[in-house]
Amino acid sequence: MRLSRIMDVCVGSRDEVKASETCELCLQLASDKGLSCFVRGGTNQEVLNSSDIVILAIPFRHLKSTVESLTGFEDKIVISPVNPMEKVDHFVFTPPSEGSAALFLKGILPDSTRICTAFNNISGKRWRSIDEELDYSVPVCGDDHEAKVVVMDLVDKISHLKAYDAGPLSISPLIEGITPLLLNIARYNHLKDLGVRFV
Amino acid sequence: MRLSRIMDVCVGSRDEVKASETCELCLQLASDKGLSCFVRGGTNQEVLNSSDIVILAIPFRHLKSTVESLTGFEDKIVISPVNPMEKVDHFVFTPPSEGSAALFLKGILPDSTRICTAFNNISGKRWRSIDEELDYSVPVCGDDHEAKVVVMDLVDKISHLKAYDAGPLSISPLIEGITPLLLNIARYNHLKDLGVRFV
Repeated sequence: MRLSRIMDVCVGSRDEVKASETCELCLQLASDKGLSCFVRGGTNQEVLNSSDIVILAIPFRHLKSTVESLTGFEDKIVISPVNPMEKVDHFVFTPPSEGSAALFLKGILPDSTRICTAFNNISGKRWRSIDEELDYSVPVCGDDHEAKVVVMDLVDKISHLKAYDAGPLSISPLIEGITPLLLNIARYNHLKDLGVRFV
Repeated sequence: MRLSRIMDVCVGSRDEVKASETCELCLQLASDKGLSCFVRGGTNQEVLNSSDIVILAIPFRHLKSTVESLTGFEDKIVISPVNPMEKVDHFVFTPPSEGSAALFLKGILPDSTRICTAFNNISGKRWRSIDEELDYSVPVCGDDHEAKVVVMDLVDKISHLKAYDAGPLSISPLIEGITPLLLNIARYNHLKDLGVRFV
């Protein structure tokens, strides 16, 4: 919904009906609020085929099977907001042996795919509360400078988000690790849906 | 200097003369500004003997030799602001096999030492600029609840710092990793001395 106000968005799902329902919900919400919104649904493969920028907003445990079920990632910009973590008593950062979800993606996507991290540390609940302004810092890392500029421009168009170039993809563990830290801080200090600001 | 305005501070050094010089500088600065300040210098061992709370504000590469040269850490509260990192082209988080400087300390200090992290993500330059207010969040982690409360109270007394309980010591890698991330963000976005705020 937030993205569909600034760009043409395709929502993919393994289940096309589920994707379409999400889009209808989005269009209805936009209509209720008198907002413009460009969104349509499809299978993951259809959406991938017709997109220049792909956001893999899925849990880490589904990342491998989802990516390996699709073809055509060559030359695309892929944004990973994925944070591998588990809740034991508290939240634990549980990256794969590659060090992060983004570096794991680098291992299974074609060499020409331009992977960036973004949106890793934003609470899903706040993201979905379309009336709420998001006043957070968004670290973006990646190895393709041009792709990083595109992603940072996109971030800067959303609410009050502020993108920061955080360097190469190899530092992605430091970005992904902030999310379990925020969840722990929220938990132990009776707060909710924390984000981060670099000041 | 910041600490010496709210508590009796002993500054330790391998070189007692160096510690005394630091204290004299601190007292002179306080006097110039008409501030009260309680500070005295000594060898590391003297300072450890007479302190309830020990802040190990030293580079990671000196942590092992410094700690192993001292005795009497039993039951003390030890604060680790240490972030193991190296600068290659950019800043890289380089924790020891234990996962963090704080967890490394746990391995070499007596079982009864109460280790907490604090102040990890505050720029040294801003810390030393005594006229500047520090409006940052300070995640504090540790396994001894009572010690954590003491450390959080201390943090909250300094400038506009706000302490947050971040959970057990095992999450310290997530706190320490923020510092190389901040240094990279500063570097790639032409900023200086960044800190972090949880919002």
